[in-house]
Amino acid sequence: MGIVGGGQLARMSAAPAAALGIDFRVLASAPDESAAQVIRDVVIGRHDDIDALRRLAQGCAVVTFDHEHVPPAHLEQLEAMGVAVRPGPAALFHAQDKVHMRQALTSIGVPCPRWRVVEALDHAEEFADVVGWPVVLKTSRGGYDGRGVWVVAGAQEAADVLSIPLAAGAQWLAEERIDFVQELSAQVARSPHDQAVAYPVVRTVQANGICSEVVAPAPGLAAERAVEAQELALRIARDLNVTGMLAVELFDDGSRLFVNELAMRPHNSGHWTIEGARTSQFENHLRAVLDLPLGSPAPVAPYAVMVNILGGDVPDLYSAYRHVLARDPGVKVHLYGKQVRPGRKVGHVTVLGEDLDDLLARGRHAADYFAGVIDE
Amino acid sequence: MGIVGGGQLARMSAAPAAALGIDFRVLASAPDESAAQVIRDVVIGRHDDIDALRRLAQGCAVVTFDHEHVPPAHLEQLEAMGVAVRPGPAALFHAQDKVHMRQALTSIGVPCPRWRVVEALDHAEEFADVVGWPVVLKTSRGGYDGRGVWVVAGAQEAADVLSIPLAAGAQWLAEERIDFVQELSAQVARSPHDQAVAYPVVRTVQANGICSEVVAPAPGLAAERAVEAQELALRIARDLNVTGMLAVELFDDGSRLFVNELAMRPHNSGHWTIEGARTSQFENHLRAVLDLPLGSPAPVAPYAVMVNILGGDVPDLYSAYRHVLARDPGVKVHLYGKQVRPGRKVGHVTVLGEDLDDLLARGRHAADYFAGVIDE
Repeated sequence: MGIVGGGQLARMSAAPAAALGIDFRVLASAPDESAAQVIRDVVIGRHDDIDALRRLAQGCAVVTFDHEHVPPAHLEQLEAMGVAVRPGPAALFHAQDKVHMRQALTSIGVPCPRWRVVEALDHAEEFADVVGWPVVLKTSRGGYDGRGVWVVAGAQEAADVLSIPLAAGAQWLAEERIDFVQELSAQVARSPHDQAVAYPVVRTVQANGICSEVVAPAPGLAAERAVEAQELALRIARDLNVTGMLAVELFDDGSRLFVNELAMRPHNSGHWTIEGARTSQFENHLRAVLDLPLGSPAPVAPYAVMVNILGGDVPDLYSAYRHVLARDPGVKVHLYGKQVRPGRKVGHVTVLGEDLDDLLARGRHAADYFAGVIDE
Repeated sequence: MGIVGGGQLARMSAAPAAALGIDFRVLASAPDESAAQVIRDVVIGRHDDIDALRRLAQGCAVVTFDHEHVPPAHLEQLEAMGVAVRPGPAALFHAQDKVHMRQALTSIGVPCPRWRVVEALDHAEEFADVVGWPVVLKTSRGGYDGRGVWVVAGAQEAADVLSIPLAAGAQWLAEERIDFVQELSAQVARSPHDQAVAYPVVRTVQANGICSEVVAPAPGLAAERAVEAQELALRIARDLNVTGMLAVELFDDGSRLFVNELAMRPHNSGHWTIEGARTSQFENHLRAVLDLPLGSPAPVAPYAVMVNILGGDVPDLYSAYRHVLARDPGVKVHLYGKQVRPGRKVGHVTVLGEDLDDLLARGRHAADYFAGVIDE
């Protein structure tokens, strides 16, 4: 199989691919990109270059993704070559275009924040008259990790944002700002055979639009609310014909759930599954897109805590090992081989156990030490 | 770091190397060897070719091993290049030469089966007069997976075995045959800093001299006997100055423990640790030889069962996936990318849980189905 994109998601897919004995090729933009460092079969090229995509797909039964940025028309060309593209271009388009996603979710009755397409400032003002300021403005395409999203307090701020040039094909989308008590992520895997499994629903914490921390399962989430989130994710996977992993990011306002975003690939909110679940999200993504029977998503410990390592002012992450590993023999470290830049996701740590406060303290300490935020 | 040998042990080391962000190079005998299939940085060459070893070591801080077959003089040359060889040649020699191992263990008071070097048939007969027939005859060098070991019932059989030509440098070794109730393996990791951790002691089951099954922890083993085995392994690691993983294979005759074999690398008896322990043997081997603090060897479930997949008459292991994975969503499969030959270790399966009989049935079923022994 082939995977488009050489980031950390492809890198972390290498281990289950090797364990299952699956030939695994990656399309990376450079030989030193995260996944290209650890995978033997690497094609160098851009994800929006149809020739590079063809070189990746040559000899592959299935092509899948490390990100959502491949133009749909290119994917249709790969399908025309006889390669199975999973998720398929039509399903993936929901994760590529937020207006398309909102239209589809609304049409199948999935609860979303109120939303509308904004073609001019007065549309935003009319929308704010209904839902109230602040309003969330998003570009329909190309955003990730907080980019392409603005929370605007009034008409003047909205005007400033709407003056930013849009990429080709993109539109402005206005959404109601949900006053949430927590953010959740519900992950499912679904295969072309329509087998599906649901992982425990997790709590995610964002800082500056970037995921900083995940707790699995979401502490204090009522069982019926967790099941509601899992059922929502399973329904979306089926109705949008998603194959592979689907992450549904949710706002919980204390009484209701609202879908925030979709991702059709392994997701940061599922990194805890490498050690914390019987089958990791990376393995189940491979199994799903290859139409193999799915593995158990059952957790192996009462709690798993994952904390992202964000780049700080220490360029050499290896120098932290002696301290971090000696202090906590139970911490699991994953570094992505990426150059350290401030605020960039360069790795993560996972701890498993029963005492959530202890796990949070340990996970945060390790991540902060790598980032250089603390030095002891 | 560099690893000599491209077998499944090197292959399974790739995942923790990638997670820890450690540059990892393998010396493989061919580009399609097990580890070479999944590792980017591969040097092709023989483990007994000093030029190939030098190419592997070039730019590596540490060189370690997938097997014990590198000539000690070659390792000394690598050390002279300024490369840390771990375990060092003097330590490793105990795993290369069984007479040397017996002498060393006896000198530090570690319980072994009675033994003697045999230079002629009358030595074997004298030895049998003391310990009784049958007697175990071994070549001091080059044996593995049951090769190089014979159990002889009397003088005629002994004469037949002793007529087999020995490899250069090898001697014949006679050992008392222990009437064991079970075979155990005690694994420890030790770093150059003299930090050491002990894994739970496991029960191993051999068939035709090849490990077929491992249960962790060894069921029914008294706690004080388990601690005795762990202490023995820790003492051997320290006294022989082993760095990295050490596996001590033991006979348990119901009242005493006897050391059978030593392996100074990750070992088949520790494959269960990939899913079954907080830190796998592969990760702790890397951490130990890099002199990083060691990870917790604590188990994550009451029992782990590992069953080897031995080659049968089904050349295409992938064809078994639909059945094996659908039947048991909790089974973890590891295939080594090796050509299937009858009796060859081509993979293993691991299951974790509380009910040992259930785990044994599930693990054996999956392995038997891969081998083609059963077809439903």
